[in-house]
Amino acid sequence: MDGTTPRPAARTRSWWGWGWAEEHPADAECVAMGALLPGTLARPLPVPDLVRELRIGAPAVEPPPALAHLVTTDPADRAAHAMGKAYRDVARALRGQPGRIPDLVARPADEQDVADLLDWAGGHGTAVVPYGGGSSVTGGVEYRGDGHRSVLSLDLTAMHRVLEVDTTGRAARIQAGVLGPDLEDRLRPHGLTLRHFPQSFEFSTLGGWLATRAGGHYATGRTRIDDFVQAMRVVTPAGTSGSWRLPSSGAGPSPDRLFLGSEGALGVITEAWMRLQERPRHKASAAVSFTDFHAALRAVRELAQSDLSPANCRLLDPGEAALSGAAHDGGSVLVLGFESAHEPVDGSLARALDLARSHGGRPEAKTGRGGDAAVGAWRAAFLRMPYLRDGLVRMGAVAETFETAATWDRVPALIDAVRTEVGAAALKATGHPATVNCRLTHVYPDGAAPYFTVLAAGRPDDGVALWDDLKAVAGEVLHRYRATITHHHAVGRDHRPGYDLQRPEPFALALRAAKDALDPRGILNPGVLVG
Amino acid sequence: MDGTTPRPAARTRSWWGWGWAEEHPADAECVAMGALLPGTLARPLPVPDLVRELRIGAPAVEPPPALAHLVTTDPADRAAHAMGKAYRDVARALRGQPGRIPDLVARPADEQDVADLLDWAGGHGTAVVPYGGGSSVTGGVEYRGDGHRSVLSLDLTAMHRVLEVDTTGRAARIQAGVLGPDLEDRLRPHGLTLRHFPQSFEFSTLGGWLATRAGGHYATGRTRIDDFVQAMRVVTPAGTSGSWRLPSSGAGPSPDRLFLGSEGALGVITEAWMRLQERPRHKASAAVSFTDFHAALRAVRELAQSDLSPANCRLLDPGEAALSGAAHDGGSVLVLGFESAHEPVDGSLARALDLARSHGGRPEAKTGRGGDAAVGAWRAAFLRMPYLRDGLVRMGAVAETFETAATWDRVPALIDAVRTEVGAAALKATGHPATVNCRLTHVYPDGAAPYFTVLAAGRPDDGVALWDDLKAVAGEVLHRYRATITHHHAVGRDHRPGYDLQRPEPFALALRAAKDALDPRGILNPGVLVG
Repeated sequence: MDGTTPRPAARTRSWWGWGWAEEHPADAECVAMGALLPGTLARPLPVPDLVRELRIGAPAVEPPPALAHLVTTDPADRAAHAMGKAYRDVARALRGQPGRIPDLVARPADEQDVADLLDWAGGHGTAVVPYGGGSSVTGGVEYRGDGHRSVLSLDLTAMHRVLEVDTTGRAARIQAGVLGPDLEDRLRPHGLTLRHFPQSFEFSTLGGWLATRAGGHYATGRTRIDDFVQAMRVVTPAGTSGSWRLPSSGAGPSPDRLFLGSEGALGVITEAWMRLQERPRHKASAAVSFTDFHAALRAVRELAQSDLSPANCRLLDPGEAALSGAAHDGGSVLVLGFESAHEPVDGSLARALDLARSHGGRPEAKTGRGGDAAVGAWRAAFLRMPYLRDGLVRMGAVAETFETAATWDRVPALIDAVRTEVGAAALKATGHPATVNCRLTHVYPDGAAPYFTVLAAGRPDDGVALWDDLKAVAGEVLHRYRATITHHHAVGRDHRPGYDLQRPEPFALALRAAKDALDPRGILNPGVLVG
Repeated sequence: MDGTTPRPAARTRSWWGWGWAEEHPADAECVAMGALLPGTLARPLPVPDLVRELRIGAPAVEPPPALAHLVTTDPADRAAHAMGKAYRDVARALRGQPGRIPDLVARPADEQDVADLLDWAGGHGTAVVPYGGGSSVTGGVEYRGDGHRSVLSLDLTAMHRVLEVDTTGRAARIQAGVLGPDLEDRLRPHGLTLRHFPQSFEFSTLGGWLATRAGGHYATGRTRIDDFVQAMRVVTPAGTSGSWRLPSSGAGPSPDRLFLGSEGALGVITEAWMRLQERPRHKASAAVSFTDFHAALRAVRELAQSDLSPANCRLLDPGEAALSGAAHDGGSVLVLGFESAHEPVDGSLARALDLARSHGGRPEAKTGRGGDAAVGAWRAAFLRMPYLRDGLVRMGAVAETFETAATWDRVPALIDAVRTEVGAAALKATGHPATVNCRLTHVYPDGAAPYFTVLAAGRPDDGVALWDDLKAVAGEVLHRYRATITHHHAVGRDHRPGYDLQRPEPFALALRAAKDALDPRGILNPGVLVG
């Protein structure tokens, strides 16, 4: 993925599922997928008509007259802002039972608009849910509860400009509402890239990445959005916070690090100075097969602890390798990639392959730039996965992912336990064997981030409840191994139980106090992180 | 510096100046140094007798009976904990006018002791000043003000153990009070190192590094202590915070990042799981001369933006090069070093030298492992600098350093402005030309950390006030260029004015609220960061 995916203009965003409506699998493809998963439906669920079937009522509050030009009460627009894109969101949409429809959708054009909207909302008891690309898979953009008289979805995508580029220091001042591809388009003429490509890249914004501490898709080194932040501006009900552009500072706790991961609960991120990189010119990649998954884990650990720093170091377990088409021999596959803007990387790849061989890995014959089938198959599957998930959901299946991170001493047993226990719970609940796969998306010298895919039969009328049960089982395993409730999907509302167990209580006290100081009326993304 | 400095047992810590009393320059050396700086004294100031001349009174509070075994009221011990080791501390000590002497010094043996001491202090209105190696150069360990009935210096150095080592994930659980050399001694048998070597290494602790966000002495890559933290335990008056061991997490704002840099104002760091590295086996270093300092800056920027990641990339301006003995031809010197545990680094050094040549750099003839005179001269001077400073202070001089960081677009003009304006202010105040030198200690793709040395004539009776004036001039320049008030020396009490200007006001609100929640009686290091 390098941000150059062709984007024809004549596509429309799906209101009920991932991405572009035109990219969703046709009914026949849904049926073919469903046939691979025992216990699913014979025919796909129909997609309800958004406005007619949802019976969206009038908003509970009038738009503020002075800000009316920024606000819409259009039912379709409001419905499209009701939820994110998790399995539970798609399943509810298909049942015609979305989450609470926001009363208003506002699209501020600048920082002052954001401040004015927060002022107005504070005076009207209106909850404000910041909204970027709407790709949350953890209930991050959905109002739940009944503590507010009305709900405003604050859509930042009209603030999408690159305001300044500093080519000397390789940084740019960027508005929070820009979507991934648009951002890369604007940086490309400067020879620069943010080089942050989460799976949601096409449908997520800089502000969303910052608010959720997005992980990016590279395996090691510079990938997490946190490390790219030079300075940030955040509008809070108590005033606007602007940190200075600094390459590094030791002046007290980092202001930016308090707002990174604050998920809209402390303020609305409006822009940031982001560190950029030169575009990579040298690339090399390869796939390596392993018979023994645990041997592959050891190889990956050694790679992560070397100085080689692979851009891609994605280990697919046997089920994931089969699912993505990377392998069908029952083995695991390690997808390796190296990139550099300055130096050839063939030597690094060769050393990594030697290391993999010493752990029983068998490199595929053809390696090099784009030269191996497994890498290509995996990448295509990676981008198409969310669409396929939605097709399976239309077949009544439960299809979802979750991710975590743990230190190396716990990783092997953690992965085994999640697969075993979630699989057993699904079998018990549905009477059909489920698929529980794992891949490592990010690796560190001290640990790794396992990413799990669950495909299970469900019934259209209880899929969400079934998934909630399976996720609770997964959450128990994560807690037992002290593995984080999320490495990069964020906490949102769905992960609150696990987050509350994980978060040290004195830090919770400090965070609640900070929230009360910055958002004294409690209007900002209520239910997320605190409150 | 690799932590293997021989440490004979028969040395005593200096109560008034840096490090070991036995390492201080003799009177004759002081005189020789003073002769190089116009306007200094003819003879060195005598070192006052600690206990007799300071006339230390009885403590204002009795030690708590249940904790009496942890507490001392010994006057010499109390006086040695009154201040850090900044110029202004040394100058005040030599005048027999140290800061407020703490009433009690406590040395807790474990976390429960810390909690018990905080409980007791909270009930007695006693300020608690956490103390590690005592090397603060920003007033971080000195009580100022009169809002508390008594002051307790909380010396953590009895908590100095390495509690667990995880060789699989290369991490260790380490108590906060361990001094640098002791820590490295305990990690060496495992083939591991924290590889964090601030200039204060010998006289500072892990807890101090964490509380102040220490920078380490490497120029790029893994050097700042923040990035080495896997998990932390912090005792606060509101309870003990323990984060999980995680390689990375996206679950809300990072708890550790709130306590990193909190300088004892939010809690007492008692232990941390720290990421370790294998010990480097491959090293190569060289020195490069530049006639044009600004051309050298461009070379260093290009190096920082390459993938080469030099361990050392220290650019000395002409004055600094002459002062440290690295050059005497009026040019600048770039000290380059590469290290790796896995791969030879000669190729990286060769590429870096090519790059330097393209900007007019002239590599010294002899390069390689320890093979060049400039590197050796610079390293020896680096370790001896604080002792020499104290010798100059005894000659009545003002001798101090300060540091900052800024983006590359500002670095050249910032350095010029600091040198010019601080130099002019010193000349105006003393009638003698002052030395204002600069070196870059850390370089980043987006900026650098300039480190300034100021040597000026002073008078023994007004040196501190003169320095405060010069530092205010420097602070104004830093603020004008939006350069941080500190890259790695911390805020303490001396940098509060600059910090208050730099810190975004909503973040200040959040930090004050967090402080009030965790330290409701306001006993923790009062005056630092907030309150």
